[in-house]
This record gives sequence, structure tokens and C-alpha cells, in this order.
Amino acid sequence: MIVALDAMGGDHGPSVNVDASIMTVNSFKHIDVMLVGKEDVLAHELKSRGYSGDRISIINATETVDMDESPSLALRRKKDSSLRRAVEMVRDGKADAAVTAGNSGAMMALGLVLLRPVEGVDRPALAAAMPSEKNPFLFLDMGANVDCSPDNLFQFACMGSAYVKHVMNIESPRVALLSIGEEANKGNELTKDAYKLLEGSRMNFIGNIESKAIFRGDADVVVCDGFPGNVFLKTTEGLADILLKMIKEEIMSSSLAKIGYLFMRSAMKKVAKRMDYDEYGGATLLGINGACIITHGRASAKAIMSGIREASDYAEKKVYQKISQEIQSYHEIKQ
Amino acid sequence: MIVALDAMGGDHGPSVNVDASIMTVNSFKHIDVMLVGKEDVLAHELKSRGYSGDRISIINATETVDMDESPSLALRRKKDSSLRRAVEMVRDGKADAAVTAGNSGAMMALGLVLLRPVEGVDRPALAAAMPSEKNPFLFLDMGANVDCSPDNLFQFACMGSAYVKHVMNIESPRVALLSIGEEANKGNELTKDAYKLLEGSRMNFIGNIESKAIFRGDADVVVCDGFPGNVFLKTTEGLADILLKMIKEEIMSSSLAKIGYLFMRSAMKKVAKRMDYDEYGGATLLGINGACIITHGRASAKAIMSGIREASDYAEKKVYQKISQEIQSYHEIKQ
Repeated sequence: MIVALDAMGGDHGPSVNVDASIMTVNSFKHIDVMLVGKEDVLAHELKSRGYSGDRISIINATETVDMDESPSLALRRKKDSSLRRAVEMVRDGKADAAVTAGNSGAMMALGLVLLRPVEGVDRPALAAAMPSEKNPFLFLDMGANVDCSPDNLFQFACMGSAYVKHVMNIESPRVALLSIGEEANKGNELTKDAYKLLEGSRMNFIGNIESKAIFRGDADVVVCDGFPGNVFLKTTEGLADILLKMIKEEIMSSSLAKIGYLFMRSAMKKVAKRMDYDEYGGATLLGINGACIITHGRASAKAIMSGIREASDYAEKKVYQKISQEIQSYHEIKQ
Repeated sequence: MIVALDAMGGDHGPSVNVDASIMTVNSFKHIDVMLVGKEDVLAHELKSRGYSGDRISIINATETVDMDESPSLALRRKKDSSLRRAVEMVRDGKADAAVTAGNSGAMMALGLVLLRPVEGVDRPALAAAMPSEKNPFLFLDMGANVDCSPDNLFQFACMGSAYVKHVMNIESPRVALLSIGEEANKGNELTKDAYKLLEGSRMNFIGNIESKAIFRGDADVVVCDGFPGNVFLKTTEGLADILLKMIKEEIMSSSLAKIGYLFMRSAMKKVAKRMDYDEYGGATLLGINGACIITHGRASAKAIMSGIREASDYAEKKVYQKISQEIQSYHEIKQ
């Protein structure tokens, strides 16, 4: 498999991407990496790390999409960006998948325009595997789609279900709808209508789930509009930060606690790691004809490598084709 | 001040409410408590605690609204519920405020029907003070109103601003709109339209805020539709639970960490306490003609007492009248 990596993307720029590419080819015999970006910069970075193999290639791209750049401007004006070239490699069959730690909105727009949505999907969605007390679950939409229709949510559920079945190998994924009460009549107009569609389908729909119960791990797929979805994700991020900060403050205000912390430090670090989404690879753009993965902007080389492995796996299993088949079959039953 | 307490409400029933009433009259000379519920049960509970003063009275009510009962059914069918009688005491001028640890939807419905919305308010909202790294902030709507219009959110902002000004004594409260990006053009149709209304008002509107930044304490009032609002609240609840559970797991898997925990235990307990919403009194029903406060169903006697104190304070300052004045003045400017 060949994965095109937007080597200029992310908060740390080329160095961490080049590190990730070397880690990848050293760890996985079946994945080659195509570094896309400024040729001279990337050649220098590779050379300075002493890499001289032939499993990492470089594709030149003279422009870079900034993290906070408007996706539509990036799409229209930056025809030679590293992000665009990486997605073009997939479109042209020169790479099997594309990965970026860069601008997620721009990746979404490029994936949509260059690779097109799969049949039966109106709006592709951004999905990520997240930790729970039990097994990981797939959460979508992470914020790419707001003002969704009940049909959009139904399609998200189909896509998520197909992803979990084929990538996470769960035969009949339990699909839940994020709402603000467990009963069918709890929620807003959107979730109540989506509930009816899901209930009438042959998906393994287990009903509404509240955000406080998500981490218990009772669902394999959790579906919602991108607005509450993004609120959910960013709340977990902000709260984990403030809790760790508070724990530090309380520790520093007591000498007994300071002594205790010396013994507990590694346990606390393990908790921080279990909650760190960087450890969970990236977000997948579900519902386009190709494999596009977006990692966190702050992703480490290791996190980017796990995004690359995920992308390769997704492409190898041709999950996007399976998504299209699943959606067709769910629609047939529905009608 | 006289506060009517729904003595049958909450997960712990009469005992914790009676405890709270005794704690209140012992702690605050200016607050008397009216216990509303089954007379014989309450008289027995009071007697068994040796209370014989005259600052706690009992009002008989033969029915009880269950925690998961439909608000509309509770409203129509239970004419002699402790919750309804407590709100009626306020309506009839026999009490200054009503407090319950019971069914929040039913309290909302009863407040709306028996006390009526203040002029200029289309939909009353449920608001609560929450902790941040700096000062507490007011968050609304907590989940009472879904499918809001931009005008609803504008009114929530007016009400929140008036509350913070008069109850939390902040002259010009900073009002933020919960969204999924800081720029004005980020969010959904609702937040984009509400942004325009708020921007054009004379409130101290500081723009959009993302949920990960809420805990930094940069805003005094955070406004949103009740759907993402409830997702936000329940995510913080669920995540705090899972984090504390994970910390315990990691500690138990290492003997060094177990030793460390002995030293750190009090620091960890302080963090749990800082994050415990029970410590933050209750949620206020903003926008009705009267003071109605709802505490958490699991509230301790101490938490119910702080809800009673809050209710008394809110009633004494006649905040609901000030909300009406503020809304009128904001509307005049707007037009």
C-alpha cells in the first residue's frame, strides 16, 4: 500500500511528518509513504535523518494550506498545495490513501471535490474511534456537518455501521443516537425524526444515548449532528485539561500530596495517555470514494504513523465501497 | 424570607430535605422554611430530629411527582403534588421562593403555568452557575428548551446578563455564545443568526466560545440551545466519572501508586469536590414571575440548603422583575 502524507500539515510541520514516515516504513513492511510538500525541505529532512531507502518517495508541492485558512479559499486558490496534491495522488491512483495533520475543513472540501461522495451519501462525515470503559466506539459527525437532516443522520449511521463492521470487525454494530434523554420522545425535532428512520431500518439500532453514558461503552457507533458532536468532543478535551491542572494545583498546595505524587506519577501519566486522543490515530472522512484520514494538528510522529496505518487498512479493505453497498441495502429495506 | 421546599422531591426523599430545612434555619436567621409534602411523614421526620422551633412549617400535599414522570401528566393529573403546592405557595404570596430536588421538567412546567413568563420572554430557561479556573459563570439553557430560535437565544442572553449583574454583582457581564469555532461565521444557522442579534445589542457580547475554552472562565454568561447545552453538561458529568474511575484503576494496578495515593488522597478528594456540581447549589428557572430553583436529584442536605439560600437571595433582590426591565431596554435599543 502507498499512503500520500501531507508532509507540510500540522502544528509541527515537516519534521514530525518525516519522522512519522520513517517510523512507518520501519514498522510496517506493507506500507510505503509518499511525502508531499516542498521537495528541497523534505529531501533535506530525510537526509539529515540518514534515511536512504526506496520506500519513502517525495512529490513536490510548492504551497501550504494554513491551519486556520478558509477551506473554500484553500480549494479555489491553492492549486499546488501539499494537501491538494496528496488527495490528487489518491484520485489518480498513484496512492491508496491520503493523510494530513493539517486543516481538517480543507481536507474535507478537497476529498469531496476531488474524490466525490459515494453513491447514496449526501454529506460525507468525519468519524473517529474513541476510548470508553470497555471497547472503543466510533463517533460521528465530529463537526464537519451542521444543520443536518434526519436523512443525513440516517446515512451517518449506515456509514458508521459499515466502518465498524469492516474495520473494527464487529458483526452487528450497536448504533446509538446522541440525545438528551434515553426515551424515543426525548431530544429535538432532528433526533426524534432520525430515531424513527433508524428504528425502521435493519441496523442494530439500540436507541438514544446521553453524553454522560457514552463512555460506558454500550454502543459501537454514536451518531449526531456535527454541532453537538463538536461540542461533545471539545468538552472532553477542555475538561480533561482542567482536571489535570486542578490535580496539579491541589498537589502543589500540600507537601504530603507532593510526596504521594512521586509514587503515583506513572499511574497519572497512564491515565493522561488513555484519555489522549493523539493515541487514537485520526479521524476518517467517511462517504467519499477514497481513504482520507485527518490526525490532530498537535499529533506526534507516533500518532501520525497510526493515522497512516489506519488509512492503509481502510484503503486495503476498500471500506468506502462497502459503505456504498451497505447504504444501498439499507435504503432498499427502508423503501 | 420564606422558602417553600418540595420535601418529597429528589432521590433521597423527605429525610434529606428535612435535614436541609433544619440546617438552613440554623445557618440563616433571615430564611424560614415551609416543608411541603405528606404532613405525617414530615412531622415525624422533624420530631425524630428533635426540632421544635417555629421557623419550619409544614404544608400538607398528598401526592408526589416521580423523577421520571412526564411533566405534562404531572401538571394535568397531580393537582395535590408537593411540587405543585410549593409553587402555588409562591403564586399566592405565602412563600417568596420554591425549591425542589425533584423532577426538573415538571418544575419548569408548573413555574410556567402557575407563575407565567415575565413580559418579553417567550421561553423561560434553566440556568446554573458553574465552576471555571477563574470565577464561576452562568450557563443556559441546560436542556429545558430545544429547537430554539435566534430570538430565544437573544432573550437567554438578556436574562443571563441580568442574573449575573444582580445576583453575582458583575456590572457588565461578558456574554458568549456557545459555538464550534470562535469566528462569527462558525457554527450553525441558529448561532450565526443569534450572533448578529447579540452583536447589534448593547450587551457586553464577547463573541463565540468553544466548549473546550468554557472552563478557562473568559465569559460570565454562556448561552446556547438546550440540546447542545445538555450535551455539554452531561459530558462533563460522564467524563469526570470515568476519569476518577481510571485513576483508581491505574492506582490499584501498582503497589507504588497505592502508597502514593495514601498521601494524595485528600488532594484528590478536593479536586472531586471542586468538580462536584452538588456544591454549586441549583439551577434557576429564569424568565418566570417568581423564584424557582431546582437542585440535582442526588443533592445532599448541604446542596439543598445552598439552593434554598440562592432562592431566597434571588427572590429578595426581585431578580425576575429586573430581568423583565432589562429585556425591555435591550429590545428598545434593538429596534
